[in-house]
Amino acid sequence: MIRIQGPGEEGPSLSARGWRATLHEVIFEADTPAGKAFDVLLILSILLSVAAVMLDSVATVRLAWGRWLYGVEWFFTLLFTVEYLLRLSCVGKPLRYARSFFGLVDLLAILPTFLSLLLPGTQYLLTIRVLRILRIFRILKLAQYLGEARVLMEALGASRRKITVFLLAILTLVVISGSLMYVVEGSGGGFTSIPMSIYWAIVTLTTVGYGDISPKTGLGQMLASLIMIMGYGIIAVPTGIVTVEMTQAFGRRKISTQACPMCSADGHDSDAVHCKFCGAAL
Amino acid sequence: MIRIQGPGEEGPSLSARGWRATLHEVIFEADTPAGKAFDVLLILSILLSVAAVMLDSVATVRLAWGRWLYGVEWFFTLLFTVEYLLRLSCVGKPLRYARSFFGLVDLLAILPTFLSLLLPGTQYLLTIRVLRILRIFRILKLAQYLGEARVLMEALGASRRKITVFLLAILTLVVISGSLMYVVEGSGGGFTSIPMSIYWAIVTLTTVGYGDISPKTGLGQMLASLIMIMGYGIIAVPTGIVTVEMTQAFGRRKISTQACPMCSADGHDSDAVHCKFCGAAL
Amino acid sequence: MIRIQGPGEEGPSLSARGWRATLHEVIFEADTPAGKAFDVLLILSILLSVAAVMLDSVATVRLAWGRWLYGVEWFFTLLFTVEYLLRLSCVGKPLRYARSFFGLVDLLAILPTFLSLLLPGTQYLLTIRVLRILRIFRILKLAQYLGEARVLMEALGASRRKITVFLLAILTLVVISGSLMYVVEGSGGGFTSIPMSIYWAIVTLTTVGYGDISPKTGLGQMLASLIMIMGYGIIAVPTGIVTVEMTQAFGRRKISTQACPMCSADGHDSDAVHCKFCGAAL
Amino acid sequence: MIRIQGPGEEGPSLSARGWRATLHEVIFEADTPAGKAFDVLLILSILLSVAAVMLDSVATVRLAWGRWLYGVEWFFTLLFTVEYLLRLSCVGKPLRYARSFFGLVDLLAILPTFLSLLLPGTQYLLTIRVLRILRIFRILKLAQYLGEARVLMEALGASRRKITVFLLAILTLVVISGSLMYVVEGSGGGFTSIPMSIYWAIVTLTTVGYGDISPKTGLGQMLASLIMIMGYGIIAVPTGIVTVEMTQAFGRRKISTQACPMCSADGHDSDAVHCKFCGAAL
Repeated sequence: MIRIQGPGEEGPSLSARGWRATLHEVIFEADTPAGKAFDVLLILSILLSVAAVMLDSVATVRLAWGRWLYGVEWFFTLLFTVEYLLRLSCVGKPLRYARSFFGLVDLLAILPTFLSLLLPGTQYLLTIRVLRILRIFRILKLAQYLGEARVLMEALGASRRKITVFLLAILTLVVISGSLMYVVEGSGGGFTSIPMSIYWAIVTLTTVGYGDISPKTGLGQMLASLIMIMGYGIIAVPTGIVTVEMTQAFGRRKISTQACPMCSADGHDSDAVHCKFCGAAL
Repeated sequence: MIRIQGPGEEGPSLSARGWRATLHEVIFEADTPAGKAFDVLLILSILLSVAAVMLDSVATVRLAWGRWLYGVEWFFTLLFTVEYLLRLSCVGKPLRYARSFFGLVDLLAILPTFLSLLLPGTQYLLTIRVLRILRIFRILKLAQYLGEARVLMEALGASRRKITVFLLAILTLVVISGSLMYVVEGSGGGFTSIPMSIYWAIVTLTTVGYGDISPKTGLGQMLASLIMIMGYGIIAVPTGIVTVEMTQAFGRRKISTQACPMCSADGHDSDAVHCKFCGAAL
Repeated sequence: MIRIQGPGEEGPSLSARGWRATLHEVIFEADTPAGKAFDVLLILSILLSVAAVMLDSVATVRLAWGRWLYGVEWFFTLLFTVEYLLRLSCVGKPLRYARSFFGLVDLLAILPTFLSLLLPGTQYLLTIRVLRILRIFRILKLAQYLGEARVLMEALGASRRKITVFLLAILTLVVISGSLMYVVEGSGGGFTSIPMSIYWAIVTLTTVGYGDISPKTGLGQMLASLIMIMGYGIIAVPTGIVTVEMTQAFGRRKISTQACPMCSADGHDSDAVHCKFCGAAL
Repeated sequence: MIRIQGPGEEGPSLSARGWRATLHEVIFEADTPAGKAFDVLLILSILLSVAAVMLDSVATVRLAWGRWLYGVEWFFTLLFTVEYLLRLSCVGKPLRYARSFFGLVDLLAILPTFLSLLLPGTQYLLTIRVLRILRIFRILKLAQYLGEARVLMEALGASRRKITVFLLAILTLVVISGSLMYVVEGSGGGFTSIPMSIYWAIVTLTTVGYGDISPKTGLGQMLASLIMIMGYGIIAVPTGIVTVEMTQAFGRRKISTQACPMCSADGHDSDAVHCKFCGAAL
């Protein structure tokens, strides 16, 4: 999905090309010592800046250190802005990078600070910077982890349609049972409107159960019991879907499709060199 | 399950037949531009009318816009009534349509408004109209989604008996543990009666846990802990059932649709070369 | 497990044997019209008596109908006592029946009323009578349901050891995390003692979450977050265990172990008559 | 993992070696009557001491029996200290024992009492002693239970990487949705800071749902509904992972323990006739 462009193949001049290629290697790759150091520094900056945003939201901390944290916020925002511009300048196809997943995340990681000049409070959205840390997988060349993540995504992707059908069924169920509860309970127990009752139905069906709204009448409690038991059983459906898809996604890699040229038996392991039944070379 | 009748095969006269067939094509099918436009308009109407019902239930909105929303409600109800009558008139076997799933939903989608003249409040049941949106699958020819839905239903259908046994076991468990808690806790912590305690047991066993009723005595808390751990483990049972059925439901696709040319038995494995019943070559 | 004895093979006299055999057929079997009628009446009595016990526990109902319900309770208790004695008298080996699962349930279904003369309140335990309704399976000859129940029990039985290990791990986890929370939270947020904290840990780990006790300090909330995420993940373990056992329990029935006598291929369906590969008779 | 060292192979003198070997057999093994008696006594001591610690934390009990329980605590701590020193003295490689899992647990089971002289309250951490009871498996030679536990651990171990990826995704999700809720809800409904909102997001996503913090605004409730439905669906992921791994862990038993006589590779299927790597007959 996310491809990082190599440097432009026909740069304007050799020296310029060399300068951009070097920068590209430091910023985008992690093979050279400089590249690795850059990446480690980047991750530290991200973690520090997210911690600063979180601390800034705690009232007592803001009272005591508010000015400092405000400075830290702007420092990291400017730093990441410079980094973003450098990335744009040294990549071969800037537009393609800007529209890639990480390009968008890099942009979203600096926008909230500028936005907070107009809309105070939006700076707390800076925590979206944690998404940048996902880059850690690529940086540390954690190929195996990436592989696992890909299999998980594949399994979820393959069950996309089934999950859509499931979600539509849940939504329908929640709208109807919410309305029923509104009619049955009246506005006594917190069921003040149909949207509120639908919210309650979601809280109940997913077995979260805050308890801020709960049925008070006998009929309402019977209906709620029914919804709870349904929610308890319905959870089996996504679990079943994902398990089946995962079984197939993982199974797909293990057994070779190769048949023995001698006895034409199949079902060999993908690392097999000889047929396990007749001993012929595969 | 849900079959839409074609027009009567021997209509009374050609012109009448043509009129009914055209209407049928517009209302029931989505192949022609007119049919597609009708379906899109219908879905928009459904969404708008459900939104109106929901808004009407919010006290502040009703105060300000109550009269308007009342008008909107009657407008859509009359619209859907006309549509229902047209459906009845142009379908080949009206009774069969009226008793089909969508026929019943179409009727239930207009009844509450008329009922609310006698029983105020029932108009909120109009949200059952969302069920009509399930028709979207058929309309948009989302054959693949329908297929997925069918496999899900099949898997749930196949585990029908196991789920009945499971639900009976849960009910028995809930009645007995509810009574025990009533005896142990007394009416101090909200366990005011056995039905109330059974309600609590359901809330606890399904791990919803509102907290409106919770045990206060040491013995009651020990018993509750036991019920929680059981509920935590018991959830594995429906999940296991559904997963196994789904594995089989999806695996079943590997069964060839080919019937034996000799004995016409079907259900052969896709790798079968000979009929497993009579031995004839497939 | 539960075997109903036939009448004694060498009864004292033919007439006595006939009397006992007839009674046995009416009470224990459901083949004859009389036996069926008896069973239907029995189930109705059980449902009525359980309903009476439940109603009796509701304060407002007891105030108005207390004396009536007291009478109903004693009526059904005496009825079931007579039935129990009749069962004892007509069965071949009374002791074996008395110690069987249903024999014990039949006894427990009458004891609480007599006990309530000494210990008021115990009559509410009469709801254990619902267990008698499980007999409905045998009575209505619901063989298929019994079969499903047996497979479920088998699957759970086979995972007995794994579930024991799992429960021991959960208990250890809950004791240690409860103690940790007691030390961290102090008695401020309701963590008044280690047993109370263990109760909280169970409520949290099973994702029930009443909210009657919840951490207030930052450290306590971090620890609680950890326990929640563990509980969220740990639920996968019993689910995995049961799913695997069920797959095996259900799979065990479908595929024949028979190999083809001609090509010695195996994996044939249990209903296969011919080899699916070479067409030879199995 | 946990290996108990045999006595030193070349002890300083025969009599000393004999003394240490005898002690080793009593303390570490459970074959001899003395060894079995020691182990049973040990487990009883552990259970009693944990019960004493728990009782000590209950305010009313401490008031009445505080002095006694304090004595009991020191008695068991000294007892376990002597036992720990004896274990160190009679084992062949004391350092290796001290760094093994059970060696560390044995040490942690006595430290808190001594620590409580400096930091009152830490004695409640003594409940970590329950971990010592896990030794019961080895003591009672519950080989089958150990086997089951090993398969469970293997299945969890094999899914280590997938679970890490899953947890990282959960953490990212929880940080971002917590910040969003903080911005949307303001500090009205208890969302007083971003860390608090992240705590709420964990409580909600894991479907625990205490209800101590819950959204009050319409937008907040919509966002919360989304998080709940995601949490409800996401639980399918660890379940799917563990189920697949368990299916493989249990299925792996079908792998023969036979090594190839030619190339000594192992891991062959139990139905293999020839080595899959070199083709030699097995």
